[in-house]
Amino acid sequence: MRYEELAELGQQLRVDSVRAADAAGSGHPTSSMSAADLAAVLLAHHLRYDFDDPGNPANDHLIFSKGHASPLLYALYKAAGAIDDEELLTFRRLGSRLEGHPTPTLPWVDVATGSLGQGLPVGVGMALAGKRLDRIPYRVWVLSGDSEMAEGSVWEAVEHAAFEQLDHLTLVIDVNRLGQRGPTRHGHDLDAYARRLRAFGWHTLEVDGHDVEAVDKAFTEAAQVQDRPTAVIAATFKGRGVAAVEDQEGKHGKPLPDADAAIEELGGPRFVRTEVQSPPTVRAQRAEGTGRLELPRYDTGTEEATRNAYGHALAALGSARGDVVALDGEVSDSTRTEYFKKEHPDRFFECYIAEQQLVAAAVGLQACGWVPYASSFAAFLTRAHDFIRMASVSRAGINLVGSHAGVSIGQDGPSQMGLEDLAMFRAVHGSTVLYPCDANQTARLVAAMADLDGVRYLRTTRGEAPVIYGPDEAFPVGGSKVLLRSDHDRATVVAAGITVHEALRAADALAADGIPVRVVDLYSVKPVDVDTLNDAAGATGCILTVEDHHPEGGIGDAVADAFSDGRPMPRLARLAVRSMPASATPGEQLHASGIDAEAIAAAVKLLVERVVH
Amino acid sequence: MRYEELAELGQQLRVDSVRAADAAGSGHPTSSMSAADLAAVLLAHHLRYDFDDPGNPANDHLIFSKGHASPLLYALYKAAGAIDDEELLTFRRLGSRLEGHPTPTLPWVDVATGSLGQGLPVGVGMALAGKRLDRIPYRVWVLSGDSEMAEGSVWEAVEHAAFEQLDHLTLVIDVNRLGQRGPTRHGHDLDAYARRLRAFGWHTLEVDGHDVEAVDKAFTEAAQVQDRPTAVIAATFKGRGVAAVEDQEGKHGKPLPDADAAIEELGGPRFVRTEVQSPPTVRAQRAEGTGRLELPRYDTGTEEATRNAYGHALAALGSARGDVVALDGEVSDSTRTEYFKKEHPDRFFECYIAEQQLVAAAVGLQACGWVPYASSFAAFLTRAHDFIRMASVSRAGINLVGSHAGVSIGQDGPSQMGLEDLAMFRAVHGSTVLYPCDANQTARLVAAMADLDGVRYLRTTRGEAPVIYGPDEAFPVGGSKVLLRSDHDRATVVAAGITVHEALRAADALAADGIPVRVVDLYSVKPVDVDTLNDAAGATGCILTVEDHHPEGGIGDAVADAFSDGRPMPRLARLAVRSMPASATPGEQLHASGIDAEAIAAAVKLLVERVVH
Repeated sequence: MRYEELAELGQQLRVDSVRAADAAGSGHPTSSMSAADLAAVLLAHHLRYDFDDPGNPANDHLIFSKGHASPLLYALYKAAGAIDDEELLTFRRLGSRLEGHPTPTLPWVDVATGSLGQGLPVGVGMALAGKRLDRIPYRVWVLSGDSEMAEGSVWEAVEHAAFEQLDHLTLVIDVNRLGQRGPTRHGHDLDAYARRLRAFGWHTLEVDGHDVEAVDKAFTEAAQVQDRPTAVIAATFKGRGVAAVEDQEGKHGKPLPDADAAIEELGGPRFVRTEVQSPPTVRAQRAEGTGRLELPRYDTGTEEATRNAYGHALAALGSARGDVVALDGEVSDSTRTEYFKKEHPDRFFECYIAEQQLVAAAVGLQACGWVPYASSFAAFLTRAHDFIRMASVSRAGINLVGSHAGVSIGQDGPSQMGLEDLAMFRAVHGSTVLYPCDANQTARLVAAMADLDGVRYLRTTRGEAPVIYGPDEAFPVGGSKVLLRSDHDRATVVAAGITVHEALRAADALAADGIPVRVVDLYSVKPVDVDTLNDAAGATGCILTVEDHHPEGGIGDAVADAFSDGRPMPRLARLAVRSMPASATPGEQLHASGIDAEAIAAAVKLLVERVVH
Repeated sequence: MRYEELAELGQQLRVDSVRAADAAGSGHPTSSMSAADLAAVLLAHHLRYDFDDPGNPANDHLIFSKGHASPLLYALYKAAGAIDDEELLTFRRLGSRLEGHPTPTLPWVDVATGSLGQGLPVGVGMALAGKRLDRIPYRVWVLSGDSEMAEGSVWEAVEHAAFEQLDHLTLVIDVNRLGQRGPTRHGHDLDAYARRLRAFGWHTLEVDGHDVEAVDKAFTEAAQVQDRPTAVIAATFKGRGVAAVEDQEGKHGKPLPDADAAIEELGGPRFVRTEVQSPPTVRAQRAEGTGRLELPRYDTGTEEATRNAYGHALAALGSARGDVVALDGEVSDSTRTEYFKKEHPDRFFECYIAEQQLVAAAVGLQACGWVPYASSFAAFLTRAHDFIRMASVSRAGINLVGSHAGVSIGQDGPSQMGLEDLAMFRAVHGSTVLYPCDANQTARLVAAMADLDGVRYLRTTRGEAPVIYGPDEAFPVGGSKVLLRSDHDRATVVAAGITVHEALRAADALAADGIPVRVVDLYSVKPVDVDTLNDAAGATGCILTVEDHHPEGGIGDAVADAFSDGRPMPRLARLAVRSMPASATPGEQLHASGIDAEAIAAAVKLLVERVVH
C-alpha cells in the first residue's frame, strides 16, 4: 500500500473509532485516534495473520495492551474484513462481541486486556512459546499506552524479554502524552522511554507516530533486529485529527462532543478493505510425550511432603505429555518444580522473582496451546492477583501451584505463609481450587487439573505428611473423601490438606471419649462436594471445618456456601487462623492458631454439647 | 570508628548471624554475611537513630527489604545495644520478638519485610513524608538483595523516587550474585543494575561491598547528592568469610553446617558496642487542621454517586485534620480524590498507574504518622494484594478506597469491574470492610475509618444512587441498618451498596404480593453485625443475601460466617455475580447477573415457598 493509502487507512480507523463510540455513547475514541496510523501501518504492511483461521499457529499475535483503545481494534477488524460495519456499531451493547475492552469472545483476541501493563508480560509468554517451543517465526506485536509504562509488571517483562533475547517481540508505545487524568510523567520525551528500555538491553526506535513512512520503516527494522526485542516509541497526539479534542486534557474515555463534525473533519467515512499478509506455512515443533502417565506412587504409612509429590508428578506428566510446561519464580528448589526442570529443561521457564511475569507467561503460553504449571509460594501468588483475575476474563486455562501454605511452614513467619490464597482463588470466576493432604492424592490431582477449564489452583504444604491413600485411589475434581464414618457419628469434621491429619488424630481422641465423628477430606475446595456434605449434615446435624488459612474465604466459607440454597442448614462452626502468627515450630504454630487435633477435639465437644443440652 | 574497627564490627555481625541461625536451627546466615560490612559501616558512621526513642520523628529509617537477612538486622540491634545477646539467641523461637523475618513487634522495625521487592516502594513513601510533609532531613536507607531487583514493584519505586527527586533515599543493593535457587540474571555485573537505575535518573555508585573504606565513602557521597536518589551497588559474596559456604550454591536459607568452626574462622565472638549517631533535634511541620469536620450533607430523595461523596468527604476530612493525606493511581477524576487534591494539593500524592507503589507509599506514610487514603478502581487494587497482605503483617493503619465496584459500572466490561475485592479484603487479618449505599453513609464511614486499626477498605460505586439516609444518621463500624421491618416479615434480604436499592424495590413488589420482608443494609461487611442478623434470623427464619460481587468471599460468606458458631442456622440463599459479564448498561448488567429487584423478588418467593410447603 502506498503511503498516501496508509494515511487514508489511518483516517478510516479514526472515523470508525469515532462512529463506534458515538453509537455506544461511551468508549475511548481519543485513545484510539492517537494510535490509528501505527495500527494502519501494522495491519497493511507487517501483520501476518489469517483472519479466516485464527487458530493457525503461524499467525502473528497482536495484543492491544491499551485495551481501552478497543474502537481502534474493532476498526482494524472491519478494515481486514473480519467484521462488518453493522457489527462495528454494536460496540458495547448487550450481546455484542465488541466489548468495552477486548476479550476472547472474539476469535482474533488471544487474551483480554483492560487492566494496563499486562499486554507486554503476556506477549513475553507468547514470544517464549514461539522461540523456545514452537520454533515458529511468528511475531508478537504489543500496542501499549505510555501511561501504563509506570506499571512494574511492564518492567518485569522488559527485563525478561531482553534476557531471553526475544527478537520476535515488538513493543509499540503510543506516546500520546496524556493519561486518563492528565499528562504522563514523561510527556513527549520519547528518549525517557528509550533510555530505560536500552538500559535493559532493548533495541529502540523513536518515530513520529503520525508519519506512516517513518512508522513503516521502524516496523521493518524491528522485524530485522536479531537477539533482542525492539520498542518502537512513537510520538502521537491523543484525539489526533479533530481539533475539538486533539492533545487536550479532559477528553479521555468519552465519545467526541460532535461526532458528525469530527467525521467530516477527518474526511468522512471510508471503506478501504485491507489485504492482510498470510502467515507462512509451517508446522509447530511439538514434542511428543510417551502417552503413558507414570505418576509417582507412595506407600501408605510413609511420610512425604505434598510439594515433593507435586514436583515428581509434574515431571511424570511432562514425560507423558509433550504439551506440559513448567514455570517458576526463582524458588524451584522450594516448590519442587526443579524435578520437572531436571527431566525437561527445554520446557522449564525460570521467571526469577517476578510473579506477575510468571503468571502472565503462563497465560501467554496457554494462548499458544501449551499447558502451563506455574509455581511459587502460595503467599507470593497474591503478587499476581490482577493477572489471575484477568486470566479468567481471558478464558485462559492455567495451572497455578502455591507451596508453603499456612502457618504450618513454621519459623519463617507470616510474610511467607499463604493464608489468603484460598480466598483469592475461590473468588476467581470459573476457578478450580484443590488442596491435597497426601502425596498420592497430590499426584492424582496434579494430573487431573491439566485438562480442566479456567484457572486451576493447587495448594501444597511444606512439611512431611503421612501417606493415607493408596496410589490407585481416585480423586475426582468436585469430590471428597469420607475418611471416618459410623452409624453413630455425632459431628462431622471437614478438613483439607494438613488439617486432615489433625482431624484424624482428634477423631481418635474423641472416639476414646465415646464421641464418634465423621471426618471428610475436602480436597476439592471448589467445586465443593455438596452431596457428601449433605449426607454428613443429615447424619450428624453439625459440621466443624478446620483450615490452615484465615477464617474468611476458605474452607469454612465453601462449606457454608454448599448449604446456601435455601434448605435447612446444619449447625456450623469453624476453626481457622484468627491471630497474626509469629515464628514457632510447625506444631507450635498449629497449636497457637487453634487448628491442631487438640483444638478440633475441644471444638467438637462444644458443638456436640449444644445438641445434648 | 577506624576502618579496622569497622571491619571487626562486620565480622561480629557475621558471627552473631551465624550464632542466631545456629541457635534457631533455621534462618538465612549466608544472606546476612554478604551484607555485614555494608551494615557495619551504615550503623557506625551513617545511621542517625535513637534506639531509646524509636518514635523520634527525626530518626533515619532503615528498611531491610531483604527481610530474610533478619539475623544481620538483629545482630545490628545487639551491636547498638538495643537487644542483648540472650535475646539474640531466641531468634525464631515461639514468643520471641526476633521473628524469621522482621516485623514491627520490634520497636525499631517500621514495616514488616520478607516478601521481596517491597522495601524500596515503602521507603519511597517514607522519603515522600520527609521531603514533602514533615520537612525533616531524615534519611531512608533501604537494604535490598539483588534477586529482588526482578520485582516490578522495585521499578515502580525507582521511577517514582527519581521523579520526586527523593535525595534523602538511598538504596543499598547487596549484589551477592546468588538467589535462593542459584545465580541471579546479572551475577556480579554491577553495571547492569547501575545502567538501569541511571536511565531512570538515579545517581549510582559501584563498590566492593567488603571494602569498608569504599563503602564508607559511597554512603558519604550518597548523603550529599542533591535532587536525586542514590543507589550504592555493592559486589559481595554470599556467606562471606566462611570457606565452607562462601559464594556457593545450595547454601541459601539454612544454618551453617559447622557453626563452631565457622565462628572460629571468622575470628571468634566479639562484643563491640557501637555508638549510633543521634538524630538532629527538629520539629515535624505538621499542618494543623481546623478541628471542625464539616462533612458534605445530601438531601434524602436526591441522587448522588457514593464515589462523589467519598471525594467530598475526604476533602472535608483533610480540612479538619492536618494529618490526612490522599494518594491516587492516576484515576483521581474517577475515584474523586481530585476533590481532595484541589483543596489540599500539598497533601495529595499522584502515584500514576502503579498500584503497588500506591499502596506501599500509603504504608510508608502511615509509618511516619500520617493517615493515608489511597484510591484506585476496586479491580486494580488486586494489583497490590501482596502489599495489602504485608501491610497487615506490618500492623499498618491504611485506608484503601476502591471505586467502580461490580457489574453496575456497565459498558466498560469485566476488566474494570471489582468483583473480587470484598473477598480479598475480608481475608486480610484485622481488616475492616465497608460498603456504603448512599452519599451520607459514605461520608460518615470515610470519617470513621480514619481512626481504626489495620487495613481499612471502603468500596464505592460509579453510578448515582438515591440518598436514603439523612445527613445526621450514625453508622457505627460493625453495625447495620434495618431499613424495612414488620412483625410479619417472612424473609430477610441482606444487601449492601448498590443492591440495597434493588432490595428496597423488591420489597415493595413483594409487599404488594402480600409477602412482607425485612431489609438489612449491611454496610459493615467486616466486622459484621451478628446481633442484627440474629434478630432477623429469629424473626424470619431465612436470609437472602444479594451482592454485586462474585459469590465467594463477599457478603454471602460474611453472613453465613456470622452464624458459624455452632448455633442453629437460618436457611440461607445468595444472589451474586455467577457468570462472566460483558458490556451492557448498568441496569442490564444487574439484570443479567440476577442481582436486581426482579431477581431478588423471585428468590424471596422461592425461599418463602419452602417454608409454606
